[in-house]
Amino acid sequence: MPHIDLNSDLGESLGAWTMGDDAAMLDIVTSANVACGFHAGDAAGILSTLKAAAAQGVRVGAHVAYPDLAGFGRRSMDVASADLRADVIYQIGALQALARVAGTTVRYVKPHGALYNTIAHDQRQATDVIEAIRAVDASLALVVLAGSPLVAWARDAGLTVIQEAFADRAYTPQGTLVSRREAGAVLHDERAVAQRMLRLVREGVVEAIDGSLTRVQADSICVHGDSPGAVAMARAVRDELAQAGVTLQPFA
Amino acid sequence: MPHIDLNSDLGESLGAWTMGDDAAMLDIVTSANVACGFHAGDAAGILSTLKAAAAQGVRVGAHVAYPDLAGFGRRSMDVASADLRADVIYQIGALQALARVAGTTVRYVKPHGALYNTIAHDQRQATDVIEAIRAVDASLALVVLAGSPLVAWARDAGLTVIQEAFADRAYTPQGTLVSRREAGAVLHDERAVAQRMLRLVREGVVEAIDGSLTRVQADSICVHGDSPGAVAMARAVRDELAQAGVTLQPFA
Amino acid sequence: MPHIDLNSDLGESLGAWTMGDDAAMLDIVTSANVACGFHAGDAAGILSTLKAAAAQGVRVGAHVAYPDLAGFGRRSMDVASADLRADVIYQIGALQALARVAGTTVRYVKPHGALYNTIAHDQRQATDVIEAIRAVDASLALVVLAGSPLVAWARDAGLTVIQEAFADRAYTPQGTLVSRREAGAVLHDERAVAQRMLRLVREGVVEAIDGSLTRVQADSICVHGDSPGAVAMARAVRDELAQAGVTLQPFA
Amino acid sequence: MPHIDLNSDLGESLGAWTMGDDAAMLDIVTSANVACGFHAGDAAGILSTLKAAAAQGVRVGAHVAYPDLAGFGRRSMDVASADLRADVIYQIGALQALARVAGTTVRYVKPHGALYNTIAHDQRQATDVIEAIRAVDASLALVVLAGSPLVAWARDAGLTVIQEAFADRAYTPQGTLVSRREAGAVLHDERAVAQRMLRLVREGVVEAIDGSLTRVQADSICVHGDSPGAVAMARAVRDELAQAGVTLQPFA
Repeated sequence: MPHIDLNSDLGESLGAWTMGDDAAMLDIVTSANVACGFHAGDAAGILSTLKAAAAQGVRVGAHVAYPDLAGFGRRSMDVASADLRADVIYQIGALQALARVAGTTVRYVKPHGALYNTIAHDQRQATDVIEAIRAVDASLALVVLAGSPLVAWARDAGLTVIQEAFADRAYTPQGTLVSRREAGAVLHDERAVAQRMLRLVREGVVEAIDGSLTRVQADSICVHGDSPGAVAMARAVRDELAQAGVTLQPFA
Repeated sequence: MPHIDLNSDLGESLGAWTMGDDAAMLDIVTSANVACGFHAGDAAGILSTLKAAAAQGVRVGAHVAYPDLAGFGRRSMDVASADLRADVIYQIGALQALARVAGTTVRYVKPHGALYNTIAHDQRQATDVIEAIRAVDASLALVVLAGSPLVAWARDAGLTVIQEAFADRAYTPQGTLVSRREAGAVLHDERAVAQRMLRLVREGVVEAIDGSLTRVQADSICVHGDSPGAVAMARAVRDELAQAGVTLQPFA
Repeated sequence: MPHIDLNSDLGESLGAWTMGDDAAMLDIVTSANVACGFHAGDAAGILSTLKAAAAQGVRVGAHVAYPDLAGFGRRSMDVASADLRADVIYQIGALQALARVAGTTVRYVKPHGALYNTIAHDQRQATDVIEAIRAVDASLALVVLAGSPLVAWARDAGLTVIQEAFADRAYTPQGTLVSRREAGAVLHDERAVAQRMLRLVREGVVEAIDGSLTRVQADSICVHGDSPGAVAMARAVRDELAQAGVTLQPFA
Repeated sequence: MPHIDLNSDLGESLGAWTMGDDAAMLDIVTSANVACGFHAGDAAGILSTLKAAAAQGVRVGAHVAYPDLAGFGRRSMDVASADLRADVIYQIGALQALARVAGTTVRYVKPHGALYNTIAHDQRQATDVIEAIRAVDASLALVVLAGSPLVAWARDAGLTVIQEAFADRAYTPQGTLVSRREAGAVLHDERAVAQRMLRLVREGVVEAIDGSLTRVQADSICVHGDSPGAVAMARAVRDELAQAGVTLQPFA
């Protein structure tokens, strides 16, 4: 029986500023990557999202990031190892306490934005993040870009790895993401996206941007909720999978 | 056999900026109030301080504050209850994770600066802090201004209360602190201060600013380490107490 | 020929977070209070808003605030005079440079949120703001709550004062604003609000919450744009005034 | 008659945290690079430094940086052009207003830390900084690493360029700085450093790390003041130059 996890970035509002529709997304996903205050999220808003996730039975993870509210954590930063390790520990701990109060538990870590992209291939920063997680709680899983070098680095260090595919992104024939700077990198047709993800789950392949099939081994699919259209696409992916008999559940 | 705890504020450096002499103070105190990043402290520096405290066997507490690096947490802020509670939980959790990595455990909470002063008498904000602590870990003690209304509020809520005296501050005949805005509020004679603290431990009294004796029931004495003179005064207090046979130990 | 200024708070987006509909509001107002980065606004977003204001011929002012992004500048803060003065100068200067690049000029200062409310009656902080403005450019006008003590303090110091009424707020019989904590403090009927403002301009009175008439002398009316409903109300006020022959123009 | 400018980074304290000895350095240098709040500096502290510089007749420049207090602006950041330009304009403007109040005028811009190093060779970010300066005030000079590609980029855009040498840094035979990660990169012998700088001024050469002579054309020498040893070295450089008859003066 095929199964897959659906994850999304939540808790990204900040004080007076709202982002995304957390309530809608908690009806769709099985895992919530919750902001930890470094790229987004204020403590009270994070706590609200965690309570809603707990009420819905959605698994929560720590969406750790570079310290960059102004850039939403999307800017590459050359952070020294001592700082990066401690910053990751700090964020996980903050979220763990808020989760405990909300009646749930942090089960995994998903780095955000530029940190996610950097550690997919930069071994120094990858090692810093891995060591930070191991030091706090070695049972926390790490969500990583499917097929990236980080998969082996994290497994070799003993972490449980969750490989992730992106519903709305085009893939190269090599199974990597097409850069956002290139035409066609982001997909907008919710029906086509839903069918791609069903094929990914059933066959372990996606059609690359050149029409060839490329193998992508994913434990979880990332969907977005930062616009009404994004929420609709996420729901389409969920419905397509559910109707095809795929079990939607957090990774083990 | 008389005994007392000595506490000080540590971990208050921030990136390239150094504050205080944590190594010197960890030789003197039995409890370290460690900054949590809201008024001072970056994660890597906090982790270093926690490791040093663990190595010295010094008990650690969370020095939670208003979110105000520019004002060092010394400015009164009218923070809403939902924010104040969540901010306190966030800070405690961040410190708990860093402490775990450092091989120690957060045992108490001491609010910092303006938050400390506000909750000594403002029941709304006091209740927010108390509820936050209870929600995270009801076994965490709360350090409070000796004799303040907060003592009863915290005890009534079931928290362990640590009443605190200040080594270098003058007291009113009513047992409250003389405001820093008044002449003579801060004491500078390390020998006199040391003897005052010995008397406090032995007899439970301090000489007030008008020469009368006032009763102060303290479980812990706060000493400062933010200048060479402050470190010397802290050491003088410690030496005076130790030579008189007072046991220096964290509160039970 | 009666005339009035319409002002609104703009430039309050922050990086990835959007707030309000600046383009829509620039079609409605004659003065734009532009955020300066302390309660809201990133430099690139502020610059975009200033360029749009310049293109529309809308006058711009510096919407200075306490340093409190997390609280959107709405939390009272006990900021020392040296800090408050320098913070106000810093914000005005930053906006002046961005305005110069955008082809316009900062013409006035409107304090935001908690700072606005505080200086309406707190003479110490009011004096700090007034002195900061005088030091940077004594020709900058100051927007103040109509009828507040600040009117005289600012005039006595030689500043041009712009007295301001709030379109969507209820007034007490004494001509002050009904606290937001009380029922009926915020008005939602756009037609009624528009007619109130027309009466204010023509007769210098508003109907207070008890039904009595109270005198409010206003040079400018503040309208909001932080929701579709708010934009519609702002447009209703503008249309009501324009159709009645009131000239909409910045204060002289 | 040979002449040279001496510059140093000032105004880098932050609220409760002190950095450097601005008063001592203002007795030594002819140009003060004043922090603008993004990597260091709070508005009140910046204003104090500007007043002291004005009183001493020391020229002031804007020490603009990436928005990174936690990393003291020393971490490379991939900032988008629209943000980098607007951030530079914002910082210059803030300093201009504070300088006006202090009775002086911003005369030049010196990027700080990672931004300084990046734009020495990264044309995209260099162009952003150049365009920002031109947009605010094209008469502001730009301080750049002597011999770097930035010299031509800035001149081609019409800016006045100040080429800068570093007193305490080793040079490669090619006239570039030896990386701080290599042994011998930072010089500690104040007498040797002073004599190197005298030779630089007289002959336009410095002895490179391999003993060869390399040509360095410098209009200004950067000295540091962040430790007592650094201040002593800066004074030694000044004294050596003055005694040899070199005129110490800001660049024209």
